[in-house]
Amino acid sequence: MRILMVNPNTTASMTEKAAVAARAVAAPGTEIIAVTSRMGPISIEGHYDGALAIPGLLMELKERQGVGYDAAIIACFDDTGLDAARTIADVPVLGLCESAVATAGFLAQRFTVVTTLERSRVLIDNLVRRYGMGGRAKVRASDIPVLELENEASGAIGKLRAEIEKALSEDGAEAIVLGCAGMTDLARDLQEIYGVPVVDGVAAAVKQAEALVSLGLSTSKRGSYASPLPKPFTGAMSSFAAMGTAS
Amino acid sequence: MRILMVNPNTTASMTEKAAVAARAVAAPGTEIIAVTSRMGPISIEGHYDGALAIPGLLMELKERQGVGYDAAIIACFDDTGLDAARTIADVPVLGLCESAVATAGFLAQRFTVVTTLERSRVLIDNLVRRYGMGGRAKVRASDIPVLELENEASGAIGKLRAEIEKALSEDGAEAIVLGCAGMTDLARDLQEIYGVPVVDGVAAAVKQAEALVSLGLSTSKRGSYASPLPKPFTGAMSSFAAMGTAS
Amino acid sequence: MRILMVNPNTTASMTEKAAVAARAVAAPGTEIIAVTSRMGPISIEGHYDGALAIPGLLMELKERQGVGYDAAIIACFDDTGLDAARTIADVPVLGLCESAVATAGFLAQRFTVVTTLERSRVLIDNLVRRYGMGGRAKVRASDIPVLELENEASGAIGKLRAEIEKALSEDGAEAIVLGCAGMTDLARDLQEIYGVPVVDGVAAAVKQAEALVSLGLSTSKRGSYASPLPKPFTGAMSSFAAMGTAS
Amino acid sequence: MRILMVNPNTTASMTEKAAVAARAVAAPGTEIIAVTSRMGPISIEGHYDGALAIPGLLMELKERQGVGYDAAIIACFDDTGLDAARTIADVPVLGLCESAVATAGFLAQRFTVVTTLERSRVLIDNLVRRYGMGGRAKVRASDIPVLELENEASGAIGKLRAEIEKALSEDGAEAIVLGCAGMTDLARDLQEIYGVPVVDGVAAAVKQAEALVSLGLSTSKRGSYASPLPKPFTGAMSSFAAMGTAS
Amino acid sequence: MRILMVNPNTTASMTEKAAVAARAVAAPGTEIIAVTSRMGPISIEGHYDGALAIPGLLMELKERQGVGYDAAIIACFDDTGLDAARTIADVPVLGLCESAVATAGFLAQRFTVVTTLERSRVLIDNLVRRYGMGGRAKVRASDIPVLELENEASGAIGKLRAEIEKALSEDGAEAIVLGCAGMTDLARDLQEIYGVPVVDGVAAAVKQAEALVSLGLSTSKRGSYASPLPKPFTGAMSSFAAMGTAS
Amino acid sequence: MRILMVNPNTTASMTEKAAVAARAVAAPGTEIIAVTSRMGPISIEGHYDGALAIPGLLMELKERQGVGYDAAIIACFDDTGLDAARTIADVPVLGLCESAVATAGFLAQRFTVVTTLERSRVLIDNLVRRYGMGGRAKVRASDIPVLELENEASGAIGKLRAEIEKALSEDGAEAIVLGCAGMTDLARDLQEIYGVPVVDGVAAAVKQAEALVSLGLSTSKRGSYASPLPKPFTGAMSSFAAMGTAS
Repeated sequence: MRILMVNPNTTASMTEKAAVAARAVAAPGTEIIAVTSRMGPISIEGHYDGALAIPGLLMELKERQGVGYDAAIIACFDDTGLDAARTIADVPVLGLCESAVATAGFLAQRFTVVTTLERSRVLIDNLVRRYGMGGRAKVRASDIPVLELENEASGAIGKLRAEIEKALSEDGAEAIVLGCAGMTDLARDLQEIYGVPVVDGVAAAVKQAEALVSLGLSTSKRGSYASPLPKPFTGAMSSFAAMGTAS
Repeated sequence: MRILMVNPNTTASMTEKAAVAARAVAAPGTEIIAVTSRMGPISIEGHYDGALAIPGLLMELKERQGVGYDAAIIACFDDTGLDAARTIADVPVLGLCESAVATAGFLAQRFTVVTTLERSRVLIDNLVRRYGMGGRAKVRASDIPVLELENEASGAIGKLRAEIEKALSEDGAEAIVLGCAGMTDLARDLQEIYGVPVVDGVAAAVKQAEALVSLGLSTSKRGSYASPLPKPFTGAMSSFAAMGTAS
Repeated sequence: MRILMVNPNTTASMTEKAAVAARAVAAPGTEIIAVTSRMGPISIEGHYDGALAIPGLLMELKERQGVGYDAAIIACFDDTGLDAARTIADVPVLGLCESAVATAGFLAQRFTVVTTLERSRVLIDNLVRRYGMGGRAKVRASDIPVLELENEASGAIGKLRAEIEKALSEDGAEAIVLGCAGMTDLARDLQEIYGVPVVDGVAAAVKQAEALVSLGLSTSKRGSYASPLPKPFTGAMSSFAAMGTAS
Repeated sequence: MRILMVNPNTTASMTEKAAVAARAVAAPGTEIIAVTSRMGPISIEGHYDGALAIPGLLMELKERQGVGYDAAIIACFDDTGLDAARTIADVPVLGLCESAVATAGFLAQRFTVVTTLERSRVLIDNLVRRYGMGGRAKVRASDIPVLELENEASGAIGKLRAEIEKALSEDGAEAIVLGCAGMTDLARDLQEIYGVPVVDGVAAAVKQAEALVSLGLSTSKRGSYASPLPKPFTGAMSSFAAMGTAS
Repeated sequence: MRILMVNPNTTASMTEKAAVAARAVAAPGTEIIAVTSRMGPISIEGHYDGALAIPGLLMELKERQGVGYDAAIIACFDDTGLDAARTIADVPVLGLCESAVATAGFLAQRFTVVTTLERSRVLIDNLVRRYGMGGRAKVRASDIPVLELENEASGAIGKLRAEIEKALSEDGAEAIVLGCAGMTDLARDLQEIYGVPVVDGVAAAVKQAEALVSLGLSTSKRGSYASPLPKPFTGAMSSFAAMGTAS
Repeated sequence: MRILMVNPNTTASMTEKAAVAARAVAAPGTEIIAVTSRMGPISIEGHYDGALAIPGLLMELKERQGVGYDAAIIACFDDTGLDAARTIADVPVLGLCESAVATAGFLAQRFTVVTTLERSRVLIDNLVRRYGMGGRAKVRASDIPVLELENEASGAIGKLRAEIEKALSEDGAEAIVLGCAGMTDLARDLQEIYGVPVVDGVAAAVKQAEALVSLGLSTSKRGSYASPLPKPFTGAMSSFAAMGTAS
């Protein structure tokens, strides 16, 4: 079984970390093909970054259809481009948020998602509601820029732990979901420290992808996810750089 | 990996059918231990049957903890006793309804669950709402007694197909969930006939069980599913037969 | 009018306290027949205890149908076995939680349920949502084991009062619902102390039972609560003691 | 116990019919004081009629506080002025819709309210949602002007029965709520004909009023229903006739 | 374009303040006809005041239909009598709460309404839910009597600011809605101080009224807002003073 | 006042039709700058087309910030890229769906949105729910490809009328919302034919944009819509044509 995991953040080190996490839980026969999108922002923090990450994501998914894969994972907790990806797929496509909250739902009746920046909090809360977990899950932001998670000296883990502790004491959380692909390497340790299930979206998505392939199930082509109608597309984006702002 | 699947319906032929379905999707290293509850109704049709099936279910789960299993599945679409089972488990416990609707949610934005009798329809609708899918899934009954599914000559399949066709034409269903453990052998054929994903709860639960075990995740012991407090239980039920009514 | 009140907790002193509360509000012509279940846990704290309390409850309800009663009350705030009980009843059956929150709804637009242990909080919150009061009522736990309510020296009342005070100051509660059958004797005093309506489930259920009988209304036998279908039940539970854990 | 029932429809024959229904279910010691509002529309059909019926209703409630009553009922299914009435009450105040849907909730998991005119359908649906029954109850209109219910030759009963039959066949209704005070005399017969619980709001409200008085519970004076603040009111309405339109 | 703005609070200075705010945002060709109701309470604080303010409001709307207006605004944040007003209108009718929360919804995903007294908080929360913003907006009370907003020395602004600061720090509010017509003059200053959108209902309603008139859209006369049926109204209210309580 | 209206469908004739509709309702001093996106699909039908239309939309919004505009409108009923657009805006940004359903909410308690293809139905239903109108509005598809609305001979209007008629007879719709920018020229005629309000999103958005600018209100920069963080973007999309499929 071949699972294509596309990181819509154009930062290769983040892809690599996710690939390690994915391979750590993959079944013996599963190959993880981890690719970094070639177009878009270096990290996805909020609606704007997310929207501009989608073309690069879709291009990877389309280009690699020739080579073939049995399922695809979008390696960003915002489930960036998930609906669009499903329309072009003839295989299952998994997002991290949807996979993680479904997984947490089997383990706990109430749980908390801890994400990075405040600007992503409502975005993820809207996803959680759409997936039906709005009545069971709270979303918290821990004020960590995404790429600080790549840097051990950044103090990011301290902030994350502080927010998890609030979730346990104030929300009555029975489990924790880590709300960023960049946190994937922290799940096991945090689970041991806090003694509650800690769900990582990358790992959860790998197992859901394997499950759907084994079950012979794929994205419905009736209704919402029907294949795109044939039609001309126009224009060119000579450089995505113009859409960003150098710091 | 050992998965204990307990059928709370005390009908061995039904267990056997579910075991076949479970083994058909299980990963190479997964052993399915299929057991039939020794106490309770021969089939679970509505709230009364379900409530009286729980002690037998819990007894199987407890007794086999000595031998050991890595996850458990309750082989009834009503998710009979699921909450109680989770409190005594130190492993993941999966219900068919919860597993199936979570699985369908990855494939379709709107779907329909087709179950057996009208008396089970609202019961399952309440589950679907609690699991967060109330806004995405409709539940239909097809007027089939559970054990007629064991009998090919019963006309049950015709009734089921008629209801699936209504789901597609009237509900805008993008996928179908089969709402009874006894329908597990029909999923693949129905998927081919109708060209939409058809999700079977037994198979879905096996893959979710494998996923959780692989991920090192287990039922939260904080809050709702905390281990039962030590306390005396009293009484005896010299015969469950007194609770049924011979036809 | 004869109202059968079954306590699914197998502790007779608790039944006696509930009987006193029931008789205190019963109409002149109403006889309260208070019985303690003979099978199951001595107190119901969480899902496991609750599930194993149901057979004993149903047995009492069935056995006494010969003698006759006009309505039944299940004397546990978790509404243990309520749905199953309704299917075998040809009379109205009331739960404490459903009765209490419906009653509170006539008196206040927003209110708080204060229950015993954290493990019961989400369980009751799920009931409150299912009964339609999720948008109007909050549920709080006060960290009191059920049987400490039988013991005046336990400090339980202090904990309960502290939680009621939080409900008033933090939740904007306009009324309080006592979320355990064992609190039934405290309602009047707490109402006087805090000057807001304090609703006790036992008393509320008695009046709802009387109301339904007077109105000539009984459980619908169409759909969810249709009478159980005739079918064999098998097995025996030689001792419930095996299901508990001596402390 | 004295229950004041005010009919905010200024049609005495309708009050009389409601009084008969109320007395038929009242407990031996309960006195029903049935009064017809002296100001407002002869029947309440929609938002405009309802709004102009409130001053007359409130005046009756205030004027009779001197004489004294233990609970009050507003005899209109739109629960006209219920919130305002509760703020001036030091006793429980019941509306027909709130009482009826709470009562139906003890008998059935899903039910249908059948009201008179289409213009009242959404108004009542909004009430049903606010009372928390939006997920359990559907509202249907049967195209009957309110006062045709006073006239046996009007064909109103035929229309009502047709709509009940649709509720049973299309909505999966397990019980029926009659959505107009003018239907109060039909409940018993319809219950016999259809074999499902048929709930009348007048009778339900009487029993809820008796229940609350017996329980020593009254409207919360904290928050929403706090007593009106003292302040001047100005103006006069020399004739309500100007607000109507002679047919 | 002529917009009739009726203040259902019978305090002329409050009407004048709202008129100034309305004219400040009105388009060049828009005439604001600001009138104070001649019947009812001097300020609307809770359900009772609101209910008794409606006849005076409806009378103004009816009497001025002869002269003509293109849209109407009800100048109270409780949307007092809005549904009734729409049934007699052949023009659009706007409430402040509905206009303000719809406006805020274009600017922010989550926001907080800050109103006056606790007794109005749940009333407004119910409106916010009915308008569909319950999942996006929180309502807070700042403990300010309505007419203290007319008095600069009252300390009201300090209380209001304290509550806005809590909304920003505790609710994650992205915008603020001022929940009382009497706060209309404060919006611009507060917006500058806090750097988030601050929406005033009077101004919002004026622009919505202009928008609907320009679009050729008016209240639907099908269903809920159908014109009142012709029928006699009876009685007289010789003095509203009897309904108030001199302080 | 200058309103920039960007059509994310890359079909100029559709932009022109929307511009005519926008100018027809714009206030005297309002200039409508209508531009067609230069990148993406010729029509937006479903999730895939929509996702690939966003970069072109954002580019227009960014490039024209130099010249200046006071508000922006995204001329597609799917509210394509609305959240992302708001993060880069220092002015209000309006979508057609959000503007239209908010407008309809002032006119009717229940209404129906009639869109084009089935694949857009759930997408729009999800928007309607997120905007809070899920309990008040139903969404229907009329099986019309978007560009057939540009062709009078296509029979599209007949299909649209058939679906509106179903909305009136089956949904109890009190108003109709046209669910595609390409239907903008039909609103007035349909309103006359059916005698209920018919809301067009283009016209509604223009008036909401004018309203917000007049009110001095703009997108909140706190939380969800905070300005994008400065960061590098990489890659280039040498041709969008590769993303489409020539018919």
